[in-house]
Amino acid sequence: MYSFGSLAESPKTVLEPLAEISHRFGAISLAQRLEEIKVWLMDDLVILEQDIQQSSSAEGDLADRAASHLLHQPGKRIRPLCVVLAARIGGQEMSVDVRNLAVACELVHAATLLHDDVLDEGTERRGADASRVLYGNSASILGGDRLLIEALKRVQSTGQNELLSRLMDVIAVMVQAEAIQLERRGEFVPDSAQYMEIISGKTASIFEWGLRAGGVVGGLDEAAVSALSSFGMNLGMAFQMADDVLDLDGDPEVTGKNAFADLRDGKLTWPLIVACEEDPSIEPVLRAVARSPAALTGERSREIRELIVGTNCLEATRERARQFAAEAEAELAKLPESSATEALKAVVSVAINRGV
Amino acid sequence: MYSFGSLAESPKTVLEPLAEISHRFGAISLAQRLEEIKVWLMDDLVILEQDIQQSSSAEGDLADRAASHLLHQPGKRIRPLCVVLAARIGGQEMSVDVRNLAVACELVHAATLLHDDVLDEGTERRGADASRVLYGNSASILGGDRLLIEALKRVQSTGQNELLSRLMDVIAVMVQAEAIQLERRGEFVPDSAQYMEIISGKTASIFEWGLRAGGVVGGLDEAAVSALSSFGMNLGMAFQMADDVLDLDGDPEVTGKNAFADLRDGKLTWPLIVACEEDPSIEPVLRAVARSPAALTGERSREIRELIVGTNCLEATRERARQFAAEAEAELAKLPESSATEALKAVVSVAINRGV
Repeated sequence: MYSFGSLAESPKTVLEPLAEISHRFGAISLAQRLEEIKVWLMDDLVILEQDIQQSSSAEGDLADRAASHLLHQPGKRIRPLCVVLAARIGGQEMSVDVRNLAVACELVHAATLLHDDVLDEGTERRGADASRVLYGNSASILGGDRLLIEALKRVQSTGQNELLSRLMDVIAVMVQAEAIQLERRGEFVPDSAQYMEIISGKTASIFEWGLRAGGVVGGLDEAAVSALSSFGMNLGMAFQMADDVLDLDGDPEVTGKNAFADLRDGKLTWPLIVACEEDPSIEPVLRAVARSPAALTGERSREIRELIVGTNCLEATRERARQFAAEAEAELAKLPESSATEALKAVVSVAINRGV
Repeated sequence: MYSFGSLAESPKTVLEPLAEISHRFGAISLAQRLEEIKVWLMDDLVILEQDIQQSSSAEGDLADRAASHLLHQPGKRIRPLCVVLAARIGGQEMSVDVRNLAVACELVHAATLLHDDVLDEGTERRGADASRVLYGNSASILGGDRLLIEALKRVQSTGQNELLSRLMDVIAVMVQAEAIQLERRGEFVPDSAQYMEIISGKTASIFEWGLRAGGVVGGLDEAAVSALSSFGMNLGMAFQMADDVLDLDGDPEVTGKNAFADLRDGKLTWPLIVACEEDPSIEPVLRAVARSPAALTGERSREIRELIVGTNCLEATRERARQFAAEAEAELAKLPESSATEALKAVVSVAINRGV
């Protein structure tokens, strides 16, 4: 049914970027576990990767090309992987429905990246030029629109109307989180409740949906689906907090992110909130940065970064991420142990150990 | 169930903008027919208008406000009106489902306007500042995303899965038409087949869907639904061609459009295609304009406009619009005559006589 020819040239399979990260940070045993998962799921991962890359045509119109460029960059594919693993818990191996739900997850994520890069005037994404740099803002907007619709159509094709309805809600919540973030641009208010609302909307909600989708299509009962959803929500929160740490602590070569990019974009992150709590003199400094991010030169940027990481904020954020990870694992413990639950545990470890 | 309080301040009901246009152009009998329809459908129109305006909150986040600003401008509401009339053909008066399908039609249209104004850097819309001018491009992008999802959710709520699937296809086709238009920016190629593809995608497809939706929820049989869909497609084509004429011939005060805006934006219109056919020397002139629209000063703009309207292109376009209108009426003739079919005929007349 599938032709694998074109994937011979595809340099990265799904877990390689994740395994690479673990290797670089010396988490060898974690990398080994990922390697094992990779071998175990190889056929599924090849199908997924091919389907993701073929969701948009590099020879199509401008919107297609903008979408295709992003989809061909090596992403972590952590969301579709979660869907596949959740479906396996119910004993459901890769089917057309599993594949459509998994790919839908990645396409929604990709659509938000295309739109976000326009919103944030981002120039790089996944270590390459952002689509908007190559094809323009307009193509990125239309490319995002197209991927959203493609994702919704794939979910509808499964006949799971409740999942479709929930995915629409997730997209609405993602848009809302972006809108709040947009509204707060130019301000810096270390509001931890709002922070949690934003990351649960923009990051965790699609993880929650993906795990639910896998569970539903895997035929699990309501209690198990609910545990998986909650696992997904907690995994997503942990994942985003680890991302926050990378913004201040990571090596841009590895993370594919510009150091300090969140602060420049006026995005609230957990380390900044903790830093202000620990040292109230930091708050006015960050407020000034938020007001005029362009004035943040290299020298001043280093000074402020030192001020922030001089507090306990990075460790406190890692600790909070570990708490979410522990809550995720507690949800997983409600399900019978299997290779799939073990693999999901490895995903959690990778999510929080990216920036170890 | 509904509170009409806030509508006391709402100056325009659905058909007023249409009736006003007819009045100004002296089409008195047409205006009278619209007046009668307005009285007949008053309750429905008030509910629709209220629902459309309340689909987004003027006190919400930036995305909400961008959407709300557009939805509060007096639009023609011709799409939702068509849905209501199609449902009436089957004897279905205003129900929650009819309302949701009708409002969905308008919200999809509004979402594309929000995104298109970002794509085209439009500054005015419906005679007021474009949302992007007031709230920024980012808010308009997110506002459009939100309205798209809101529209899809409303359609899903009716339980009409096939209509939902078709609406997703329509949105995909609208995006594709925009992408082709975007790709052709900076060029001028008087390709009539491509023109028909673009306007059928960006304008007629949502009319087709709206008429189908009304017919389906009105309980009509397949043949009747098919006739209504085809009516909608032809109405949409006629509507867009009349719009093309306005771009060259209309009074911006009445149409709410900047004269010559399509040509400046590099959009292919039917009059331009006809003008080039009649006078091949016009093609290189328009190609030059497409290449550097900013160089089109007032004086040069008037000269080129005279060159174009000096051909028979406006009358030829009106004639082509009348043909589509006749095809629409032929489809309508397959249905039993009723007040609703009469009203749809009036809508067709208004669509092609806006620029008389």
